[in-house]
Amino acid sequence: MPEGVARKLIAAHLVSGEMTPGTEIGIRVDQTLTQDATGTMVMLELEALDLDRVRTDVSVQYVDHNLLQADERNMADHLFLRSACRRFGLWYSGAGNGVSHPTHMERFGVPGATMAGSDSHTCAAGSLGMLAVGTGGLETAMAMAGEPLHIAMPEIWGVRLTGELPPWLSAKDVILEMLRRHGVRGGVNRVIEYHGPGLASLTAMDRHVIANMGAELGATTTVFPADGRVREFLRAQGREDDFTEIVADPGAGYDVTEEIDLASLEPLIARPGSPGDVVPVREVAGEDVHQVVVGSSANPGLRDFVAVAAIVRDRRVHPGVSLDVNPTSRQILLDLTRMGAAADLLRAGARIHQAGCLGCIGMGQAPAIGRNSLRTFPRNFPGRSGTEDDRVWLCSPETAAAAALTGRITDPRDLPMDPPVVRLPDVAASVRDEFEAPLPPGRAREVVLDKAPSIGTLPALDPLPDDLEVPVVITVGDDVSTDEILQAGARALPFRSDIARLADFAFVRLDPGYPDRARRAGAHAVVAGRNYGQGSSREHAAIAPRHLGLRLVLACGYARIHWQNLVNFGILPLEFADEADLGRIGQGDVLRIGNVREALREGGGVEVRNVTRDETYRARHRLSERQLELVAAGGQIPLLRERVR
Amino acid sequence: MPEGVARKLIAAHLVSGEMTPGTEIGIRVDQTLTQDATGTMVMLELEALDLDRVRTDVSVQYVDHNLLQADERNMADHLFLRSACRRFGLWYSGAGNGVSHPTHMERFGVPGATMAGSDSHTCAAGSLGMLAVGTGGLETAMAMAGEPLHIAMPEIWGVRLTGELPPWLSAKDVILEMLRRHGVRGGVNRVIEYHGPGLASLTAMDRHVIANMGAELGATTTVFPADGRVREFLRAQGREDDFTEIVADPGAGYDVTEEIDLASLEPLIARPGSPGDVVPVREVAGEDVHQVVVGSSANPGLRDFVAVAAIVRDRRVHPGVSLDVNPTSRQILLDLTRMGAAADLLRAGARIHQAGCLGCIGMGQAPAIGRNSLRTFPRNFPGRSGTEDDRVWLCSPETAAAAALTGRITDPRDLPMDPPVVRLPDVAASVRDEFEAPLPPGRAREVVLDKAPSIGTLPALDPLPDDLEVPVVITVGDDVSTDEILQAGARALPFRSDIARLADFAFVRLDPGYPDRARRAGAHAVVAGRNYGQGSSREHAAIAPRHLGLRLVLACGYARIHWQNLVNFGILPLEFADEADLGRIGQGDVLRIGNVREALREGGGVEVRNVTRDETYRARHRLSERQLELVAAGGQIPLLRERVR
Repeated sequence: MPEGVARKLIAAHLVSGEMTPGTEIGIRVDQTLTQDATGTMVMLELEALDLDRVRTDVSVQYVDHNLLQADERNMADHLFLRSACRRFGLWYSGAGNGVSHPTHMERFGVPGATMAGSDSHTCAAGSLGMLAVGTGGLETAMAMAGEPLHIAMPEIWGVRLTGELPPWLSAKDVILEMLRRHGVRGGVNRVIEYHGPGLASLTAMDRHVIANMGAELGATTTVFPADGRVREFLRAQGREDDFTEIVADPGAGYDVTEEIDLASLEPLIARPGSPGDVVPVREVAGEDVHQVVVGSSANPGLRDFVAVAAIVRDRRVHPGVSLDVNPTSRQILLDLTRMGAAADLLRAGARIHQAGCLGCIGMGQAPAIGRNSLRTFPRNFPGRSGTEDDRVWLCSPETAAAAALTGRITDPRDLPMDPPVVRLPDVAASVRDEFEAPLPPGRAREVVLDKAPSIGTLPALDPLPDDLEVPVVITVGDDVSTDEILQAGARALPFRSDIARLADFAFVRLDPGYPDRARRAGAHAVVAGRNYGQGSSREHAAIAPRHLGLRLVLACGYARIHWQNLVNFGILPLEFADEADLGRIGQGDVLRIGNVREALREGGGVEVRNVTRDETYRARHRLSERQLELVAAGGQIPLLRERVR
Repeated sequence: MPEGVARKLIAAHLVSGEMTPGTEIGIRVDQTLTQDATGTMVMLELEALDLDRVRTDVSVQYVDHNLLQADERNMADHLFLRSACRRFGLWYSGAGNGVSHPTHMERFGVPGATMAGSDSHTCAAGSLGMLAVGTGGLETAMAMAGEPLHIAMPEIWGVRLTGELPPWLSAKDVILEMLRRHGVRGGVNRVIEYHGPGLASLTAMDRHVIANMGAELGATTTVFPADGRVREFLRAQGREDDFTEIVADPGAGYDVTEEIDLASLEPLIARPGSPGDVVPVREVAGEDVHQVVVGSSANPGLRDFVAVAAIVRDRRVHPGVSLDVNPTSRQILLDLTRMGAAADLLRAGARIHQAGCLGCIGMGQAPAIGRNSLRTFPRNFPGRSGTEDDRVWLCSPETAAAAALTGRITDPRDLPMDPPVVRLPDVAASVRDEFEAPLPPGRAREVVLDKAPSIGTLPALDPLPDDLEVPVVITVGDDVSTDEILQAGARALPFRSDIARLADFAFVRLDPGYPDRARRAGAHAVVAGRNYGQGSSREHAAIAPRHLGLRLVLACGYARIHWQNLVNFGILPLEFADEADLGRIGQGDVLRIGNVREALREGGGVEVRNVTRDETYRARHRLSERQLELVAAGGQIPLLRERVR
């Protein structure tokens, strides 16, 4: 049977299960990626697992999220991560080298490889014909230990692209169109595979833009073929030897199908609050703008920055606007410098920052309250910018640059100028010894982990009790993101290596009383609506509530990565059989599941007794045998330690 | 009588008093400079004074200190400052344009002019033959309102330079030599005037390095002649028309004299804790270094960055070191870009940041606890870096670059290479409309101040009571800096526009209990050793304790700017007649001065009764009639409002 790229990649790495949508499958992992916000926890997990050395082809630790260094914890994390790379045999990419996703694509990505990454935008590597899945930190740690990655076999969603983008539009408008059509839950349990004649006009970096924000659709991952455009990209990187062609067989079918005529698109923008609330730019044009930020893994390409530079060249950014430029890699900043684009940006009034995630993860660049900030970023969940009551919009570099010039939301086609012509160098800049290579095993074993007092240890994880009787400490609605469960940003992120302290931030965006109530309650439950735990992959959103006593989540549905994180840390994730029951449970109600191990193993679902209201709800779970075992054990770490050692 | 440059500048601006050292004089102010950390308070003061429009030739508001934007307050400050510039007729230099001192020198500095600036390093403008004095914010606000600047007529300290610096040494080593010889109190009540044949080899920017850190010697200011090197600098800026020659008359004498043979110097470094603890680099060579930071107003010149770039070019920064490069102005970053030096730095592994003060004011770049950080900055007071138990060293760009390559403190002369050859462009980069010009008065009057909720109002200031009877809430030792009285850095600086909230940080570096005890006590006293209030000019170190009730400081001696800030906010600064009495007073003792207004006017000093211990101390003050009046009134603002309106 003719196969598409996604199924070929899965088949080539399948180690367990059947490729039937919904069934759990195990996949061999070739590469891993970690960043600093999740990486310190991953390294503590490797330590807890007593691992000697990573068993992947390539594992790279990036430092890109927390570069502010507002206090000593930040540098302590960097030193700890570097020592862990030296100890466990990882590559180390230090602060200033850039955002993991584009940097990995430039230097390590290989068509046909699989990757697990403890960052939700890991899926961006699909731009090279990789099968790259964002996971919780523990699953990435397990992949480093040689364990397969377990996921539910996704449906394959074939999106056929035709035509070419009109002037003033770019790849961001394509993924915004997907979000406009399908919202933030449209891709759940799916792999999106782009194909068709429209692909020819999209470079590998354009595809990165589209693959990256597959995360915002909730997709398991996104894949593109490894074709001539990928070869061209690798050639510019001096890595043409790493190219392998991987394309869909003629006539390949997909579980779900969709078509986008690129020529029919117009500039789009996501309104404040959700990447899924997308409208045409013209519909909201004219609103005042006080900040424009360009960069992030959602618009990381040299092309994106050069386009902005060309638009503002010999002009002046509106004096009421701060135009912040966040280069995404050292290579790109070097190329901007040698092309003169950096000078064009500076002369127009831009602030050029070091390469990194910066404002995209709420580390700096916080906007003013209630003022519009336009960003080329992937996410605008409320408060993620570091500002309560923020107004963050997501758009293309072209739309961002137009607002920077006019001080208002502006359809770039309405600028009184010709569209920018972007010419990129054939060969990208390279830097000798930019990454610190793994130490040989003998030397690695002599390395002592560099742990400052701010580096904690993993909390102990006890088994699930036989009878679960727990109060509901918080009830929340639909689409609660991991940013709301455990915020990133300058307030909380510095404590990411110390779970006990970090737990003080759990749920406080939604309810500042949660940490105290949870501490008093001990073992407790959370009740939630649909798509619970969307957004960032950060496993802290599971570990920190678990540290406060969380044992049970009862929700209408889950975002994939957070669901896995809950399981991995021994928190039982159940789903309402009838979503209407959600409204029947109040904060403080006590829920009871008797003889929980056996109840979970019964085919017909689980009965959850509301002791307070004297009601019973039907619930189900999607746990495999393997996962049931580990929830009962209290999580992966107690289970896995024996196997890895 | 032949006169030096300093006395010529003072004489040309004298509006009251005699030029006899120690006497209070009033000086007409031509220019003012404010930065964002002090500027929000200055603008609130202009508002409290009900000023219509600034009365100086040039007043410029820079945004350089707080660029992290970790939350919404930061951007709110920028928007407030911009609106205040538009309302009151100031120039506005937005975030990313650079550090006030070098930027002002490039674009606004004029030989022969006077300047008051609410930043202690304002004295750097002495490099152009200006008389530039760092003051509290309120004095800068008064200068904007057309009031003269009052200072004690300083002694003039003539420092004769001979010879030329050897290879691998630069201007920083000259000022470090001054600090090695005289420590942080050596310049108190003095203006330092450099002269002699050695000047010819120092560019205007080299002189900026030396003038800038006159602040660390405690000097009132530093002056250099406006000679051919100044003309050369202004020519490169396209401002040769602004040049006026101002040189010392042949045979000019000085109150104090000193000589430095530049050829005899060696690379120097200040050890952690104080800019005055200077030793030869060779004495401490070999210590491990984990961070090197280049930039700040103490080493702001293009030359300094190009020298570092030349040293690391085609080499790799030691993998255990973070090399952070903080460009000091947009112009310099542009020139680094077009010269290829930015690329050299990036290729070697440096992190290039936006132009600004950044780590120098503890806004980011915090080092790890107990690890050595080498910086080209002016200050290394404990904790100023943002890290408790920091180890920050101050050195030249050459010494910094050497450590970046070797990972250890290294005398740059011991590097296995030739000294860098630095060639600078004849004409510096320029940027059209980089600064927002003052609005015409008609339009200015229509501007409404942009005040977010985080912008407070000035606390009300009540008159001094007739009988002062106050408990001592804290006693401190010698050389306590304003960083210790009221820290800058990422924790406190965001609250700088809200005194009530900021007051929670008062003295907490020395004693976390102070804010609570002071609040309980209400009116209270502080007892201190010598050189009290050294360092930064921030008037928050006076206003915040005043808000908590501080009315009396009894110290062995004061740093000039802080002493003036105390007076300006109605806090009585007395000095022990006998320093030994310091040790006799304990925390909690109640001090009493009866009939305080009359007591201050008596010639023989003031009797301070220790009610608790039944002892009496003799104290004196250095207040002029004018100052007595304003302390009694409760500070400048209540007094001045009527006059300005």
